[in-house]
This record gives sequence, structure tokens and C-alpha cells, in this order.
Amino acid sequence: MIIIGERINCTRKGIREAVEKRDEKFIQTEAINQAIAGANFLDVNSGGHPGREISDMEWLVKVVRSVIDTPLCIDIADSVAIETGLKLHGSGKPIINSVTNEEKRIKEILPLVKKYNTYIVALTLEEGGVPTGSDRRVEIAKELINKILDYGIPLSDIFIDPCVFPLSTDSTQAIAVSDAIRGIREEFQQIKFTCGLSNISYGLPHRPLINQTFLTLLLSAGLDAALIDPLDKRMMAVLLATEALLNKDEYCMQYLTAYKEGKIT
Amino acid sequence: MIIIGERINCTRKGIREAVEKRDEKFIQTEAINQAIAGANFLDVNSGGHPGREISDMEWLVKVVRSVIDTPLCIDIADSVAIETGLKLHGSGKPIINSVTNEEKRIKEILPLVKKYNTYIVALTLEEGGVPTGSDRRVEIAKELINKILDYGIPLSDIFIDPCVFPLSTDSTQAIAVSDAIRGIREEFQQIKFTCGLSNISYGLPHRPLINQTFLTLLLSAGLDAALIDPLDKRMMAVLLATEALLNKDEYCMQYLTAYKEGKIT
Repeated sequence: MIIIGERINCTRKGIREAVEKRDEKFIQTEAINQAIAGANFLDVNSGGHPGREISDMEWLVKVVRSVIDTPLCIDIADSVAIETGLKLHGSGKPIINSVTNEEKRIKEILPLVKKYNTYIVALTLEEGGVPTGSDRRVEIAKELINKILDYGIPLSDIFIDPCVFPLSTDSTQAIAVSDAIRGIREEFQQIKFTCGLSNISYGLPHRPLINQTFLTLLLSAGLDAALIDPLDKRMMAVLLATEALLNKDEYCMQYLTAYKEGKIT
Repeated sequence: MIIIGERINCTRKGIREAVEKRDEKFIQTEAINQAIAGANFLDVNSGGHPGREISDMEWLVKVVRSVIDTPLCIDIADSVAIETGLKLHGSGKPIINSVTNEEKRIKEILPLVKKYNTYIVALTLEEGGVPTGSDRRVEIAKELINKILDYGIPLSDIFIDPCVFPLSTDSTQAIAVSDAIRGIREEFQQIKFTCGLSNISYGLPHRPLINQTFLTLLLSAGLDAALIDPLDKRMMAVLLATEALLNKDEYCMQYLTAYKEGKIT
């Protein structure tokens, strides 16, 4: 699985404080630790304080990329903040998170995907509404994927995020996401899927258990990537166990190696 | 999920010793603890010491049923040992574990299923061979189910066990079982599935993690029952989390209740 390390997010208290204090070492340690733990991309989200998103993104990308080559996932709504991050990114192919099936977003974001040769996370969201079932998610994804393809961006650069909503408010949401992944893949076999896994457990106790179990279900449905905390040892162990069970780890070699390294406890 | 408590099994050292010493209290405590922890059936396996299987089954069923009403899963190959257990079972509907697609087994076991009105676990095994892929498992299951139905036993009394073999010797085995469950259910929607979950992790380190993750995958595929240890708190927590995610726990009430009772830690 492609791991997008989720920790550098300004809506998290420790990160927000470090960014406000311009504490380079704190942020760089977060970046390095996630890369060592196996992150393939590092999410950088400078949101939460309107008016500071652009300057915070600029600082964060400079600080992170000065110590590490792992490509970033530029995770912010504002397109100026996104371009600020992309200009400073340097080598490697980053991800833009995200575009939706809204005309304004499409017009703002897709030119950046082409100009900077990035991957794009495409959310199954549309004007004025959030889909609750899997069918509408599949329909939105089809429309949006076709718009992105028409723009000349290849399928292999698209990550669909089927929008995870809390199980505590609608107990069909985990199945809806899982079914949406299967339904979209029937149409577009080469598409990739990602999601913000932990939204599922909002409002429930012992969230890590729900998140870990949901990861297993979504990997089984075809998830390729996820925004997770690679420092969460149990989550990483569940990931390895799931990949072994899904025959994505020949002779269980990755699982066995991780065990020998003390990563599965 | 239907939980078949697996602990009273003479191939386990502590149980073997207690049975040899005729330690009623030890066995009864095992039975009561499993029932309290949520077991719907208690497996009773008197195997391991040829020559003692019948007398040990007789003693075990008497001892367990003298303190508890939870029905038993009579788990032994020898048909005389099975009938010995069934004669002493009393109220409730027990499970016989198991019949295979072998003429000798069918002739010995199905009459007992009818005579004692039991459930039956039907293994996807045939003469002289073990199926490695899902397709052959589905074919054997179809043949065997039709033989059982022809014998006048209703579909609702059959648990198919798709035979779990270790991932460490064949990394396609988890997927084969999962696909077999989906394939058999396409043909027989009212059939139930059970399995010996922990066979999957034989030969791998940190077996509980593999077993727990496999439970999530199989529940998603349609597993109805499993032979597990209900005293394994993490396994029970993963079960509750999976059922919540699969919309089998309205408003996550069972999950929340278990959390309040300190069962999810």
C-alpha cells in the first residue's frame, strides 16, 4: 500500500504550535520519522488558520524538503497555497489533495496538476451535496474521472478518494465506501484509491481499533493508498498482516522481516 | 457472528491434563467462562489419544452440560464418540463437527444429524485430497450440500467449513477461502459458513494478529460462525469493530456497550 504520512497537519495541536513558533526541528523530526517508518508521501496541510495558509505552506514545504526527498501531498483547499507548495517542491512527483466534481475547483486545480506534473486526489463530492450511498459516489467518480482524462491527465495519475464519513452518524458508511471502490474499479481498472481512513471512527470510542479494522476491509475492496500515521505501530502491523493475507506479500517476507525488526508486537 | 468457543479441546495441554485427571472443576470453569464471554456453542474435542476418545467424550459432555445450557459442538472424527456425546447432550441443538465429501463419512454422520436433530459442519474435503483453490472448494461444497439436502437435512442446519490451510505454506490460502465463501453463497444463499480461523497463521509469528485480521476479511466475505477463543479480548474487540463497520450493529450499540463494559481496550 502507498502510505501517505498524515502527521504534518496544522489542525493538529502540536504541529500548529510548531508552525507558529517556526520550529524547524520539530517539523523535520516529524518528517524524518514518518519516512523511516515507511511513508511513501508526506501530507502537508497548512489549513486551520485562514490568512496564514499560504505563508505556512511555503515555510512547511521549505523546511520539510530541506531534510528529506520523500515527495509531498500538498493538502489544502486554496489553490494559491497549493501552487506555493508546488513551486518549492523540487524533485519527485507530489500529490495535490484535492479536486472535487465542482466546476470552480476543476478549473483551479487541474491546470496545476498539468503544469507541475503531479498526482491528483479526486474526491467524490459535487456542488451542494455529499453523497451518502455507494451508487452516487460511483456516478460522481465516473463524471470526474472523465473530466480529468479529457484534460489530458492520465488515469495512472489519479487517486479517487470516495469520501469517508463517520459510522457513528450513519452505520452504512463503511460499506458504502467499500462498495464504491469496487464499483469504480469495475469501470476504471487502472485507477488508484486513497482515503482519509480515520474519519470513519469520529465520535466512537477506541478509534484506532475501528480505523485498523476499516483498513483491512478497504484493502480487501481494493484500496491502494491511505492517509495514515506511519508511527502507529499497530496500524502498520495490521497493514502488513492484511497484505500477507491478500497475497500481496510473497512468502510473507515483509511480515516476517517486520516481525524480526520488532515492528509487530 | 455465531461464536463456537474453542477452548475445550484435548489437543491443548491444559485440557488434556484436566481430562486425564478427571478434573471437573477445571473443565467447568472453561465452559462457564466461555459462555459468559459470549460463546453461542462450546466446542468439545476429545481427540488426541486414540482409545480414549469415546470415554473422554462421555465424561466431557456430562461434566460440561451439568453446569451449562450452552449447546455443544461435538468435534471428533469417530462416529461412536460423536453418538456418545449426542446421547448425553440433552436440551438445545448441538453441532456435529464434521462430515466431508467422502462416502464413508457421509454414511456414518448424516444418520446421526437426523436422529439427534443437530446442525452439521460440512468440510470441503473429498476422497484422497485437499483442495488448494477456491473453485474446487465451491465444487465440493455444491456436491456435498446436495447430498445432505437429498438426505432430508435442511439448508439452515448446514455450516460449510471451507478448510483453512496455513498461509505460510501457500500465500493464496486466505483469498481462496474468502472467494470460496462468496462463490458457495452465490449458489446457496441460506447456507451458513464456519471455519477454524487460526489454521491460517500456523508457522507465522504473532499468530493472534493474523487470526484477527483474517476474521475481518472472512466476515466481510460472509462468514457466519467461527471456532475462536472468546476469552481472547482483542479477537472479540475486532469482531465487534468489524460487525459495526459491516452494518451488523445498528447505531454501533453493541460496540459502545462492550466499550462501556471495558471489553474494548
